[in-house]
Amino acid sequence: MKVVTLEEIRPVLDEIDLLPLIEEGFAQYSAGNAVVPPVGELLLEGGDVHIKYGYIKGQPYYVIKIASGFYGNPALDLPGSQGMMLMFRQATGQPVCLLLDEGWLTEIRTAVAGAIVAKYLAPAEVVRIGIAGTGTQARLQLQYLAGITDCRQVTVWARGAAQFDAYCVHMRPLGFECTPAETPDDLLRECNLVVTATPSTTPLLHADALQAGTHITAMGSDTAQKQELDTGLLARADQVVADSISQCLERGEIHHALKSGDVRKDQLIELGTIINGERPGRASDEEITIADLTGVAVQDIQIATAVWSALNK
Amino acid sequence: MKVVTLEEIRPVLDEIDLLPLIEEGFAQYSAGNAVVPPVGELLLEGGDVHIKYGYIKGQPYYVIKIASGFYGNPALDLPGSQGMMLMFRQATGQPVCLLLDEGWLTEIRTAVAGAIVAKYLAPAEVVRIGIAGTGTQARLQLQYLAGITDCRQVTVWARGAAQFDAYCVHMRPLGFECTPAETPDDLLRECNLVVTATPSTTPLLHADALQAGTHITAMGSDTAQKQELDTGLLARADQVVADSISQCLERGEIHHALKSGDVRKDQLIELGTIINGERPGRASDEEITIADLTGVAVQDIQIATAVWSALNK
Repeated sequence: MKVVTLEEIRPVLDEIDLLPLIEEGFAQYSAGNAVVPPVGELLLEGGDVHIKYGYIKGQPYYVIKIASGFYGNPALDLPGSQGMMLMFRQATGQPVCLLLDEGWLTEIRTAVAGAIVAKYLAPAEVVRIGIAGTGTQARLQLQYLAGITDCRQVTVWARGAAQFDAYCVHMRPLGFECTPAETPDDLLRECNLVVTATPSTTPLLHADALQAGTHITAMGSDTAQKQELDTGLLARADQVVADSISQCLERGEIHHALKSGDVRKDQLIELGTIINGERPGRASDEEITIADLTGVAVQDIQIATAVWSALNK
Repeated sequence: MKVVTLEEIRPVLDEIDLLPLIEEGFAQYSAGNAVVPPVGELLLEGGDVHIKYGYIKGQPYYVIKIASGFYGNPALDLPGSQGMMLMFRQATGQPVCLLLDEGWLTEIRTAVAGAIVAKYLAPAEVVRIGIAGTGTQARLQLQYLAGITDCRQVTVWARGAAQFDAYCVHMRPLGFECTPAETPDDLLRECNLVVTATPSTTPLLHADALQAGTHITAMGSDTAQKQELDTGLLARADQVVADSISQCLERGEIHHALKSGDVRKDQLIELGTIINGERPGRASDEEITIADLTGVAVQDIQIATAVWSALNK
């Protein structure tokens, strides 16, 4: 089993066109060509561990990803999020490689999913991008949106001025002009493409601030506890899109909205069916669309396979 | 993350007294001090993958084991069973080590569980040991029973003469005298400590051959499909012992006997409660006892932790 470090992974990542690969993963998933068991979850006193795994039929490998979040780690000068991916041969179960990516591949494949969602659901003319959160994922989401929209005007809701300033410093070299939001709901008032990337457990955005033609991607909430959107927002959406319907029944924004009765299960649209062309994606400038991303093993399978393939070119 | 190979693991294994450690694992599990989520399972065309994981509260590490069985591998000169264990810090999620044991630690911890069961449930005087199967686990079960009983007379049910001969060659140096059984049920007629270690999917042993005072350990069936014991055997047992009641509801002999109505859930006794002293174990020379072993993550946690600790002495 070859062990590959993050240092070795970073340079090859730059060579890979990830968007079509991750799209293909979602498409295969929604077409029923992927085997993705329920997410394994281990809860500890100071954090939680998720095991996402599975394979796409006809490909050479299956992938098992182990990712964790330990919220006290930053105070110990340790990374809050960690992760690694293991790859095995589908035909024989032989271990192929261990990608010690330290959670980086998860960050990237999550940001790519945000870009894919925006490609199919963002309004044709993005007047301003709204970002809730200033962490690594909030940065990467914006970075990957650069390939989808020409808009470089951004309103950012940060927990504090220091966080906002640090975010600006990172995003300015990529051409983004950031202004701070006083409240999270200002994002809905000022922007028509909004991405939430916080670990919030109480709703940040509310329905009364929502305007016609807005698209929201909620990618922060990946557990049953976390919540960024008031469920009333989902009630007003013309399209409620899940990366995985089965996962969104158990975790994330959709799970809260189903519980409150603001959304019915039969309204849910799976992202892969839009990519497959079964569903239309955004149908008009006036539509309100909301996508809930919980992270699906097919994203891990596709990025791990692409990295391994690039390393062995 | 330190990577440790089987070559490095084998010598330290010999230095560790595994039986009390694995006992402790079962005891903690039944006392509710272990967190062991349901087994993750990935089914592929040519095999299956199991992910067993969890932790014992108060210990330093959590362990994730990835094990697979690919039944066409031997024809390709590849091992049928494979496995590895990953260890992380409970406090921070930091990866500690990857034990590339190639499934060997699973073989050993499984054999040790057989010895533990025999310690508490085998008749005081073992007249003859019966073994169904001649594979690696059939060898290891007998090898580890050597520490529990003085009996060295063994009847072996093998698929063929070649398998029987190979088994004898392995076991003779350890002092065991093996004779072949014509039928599996001969094991029940001749022996009062019987271990089944086959991948059978149809019952090998039947109730009409069962004698008073017999103990049977069924360790071959670890999936919903496999079955070594006719469910009528469990109906006649005074004690039906599960390594994990929750796992045995879904897989193994007990799961079949529950389905057929030969055993009721409230009759089941968990191995750890016997080790804890809550339950008596074998209570008389006449009792019939059956233990169903499906393999529990606490065994993996205990053996991995012990190996890592021995490597760092």
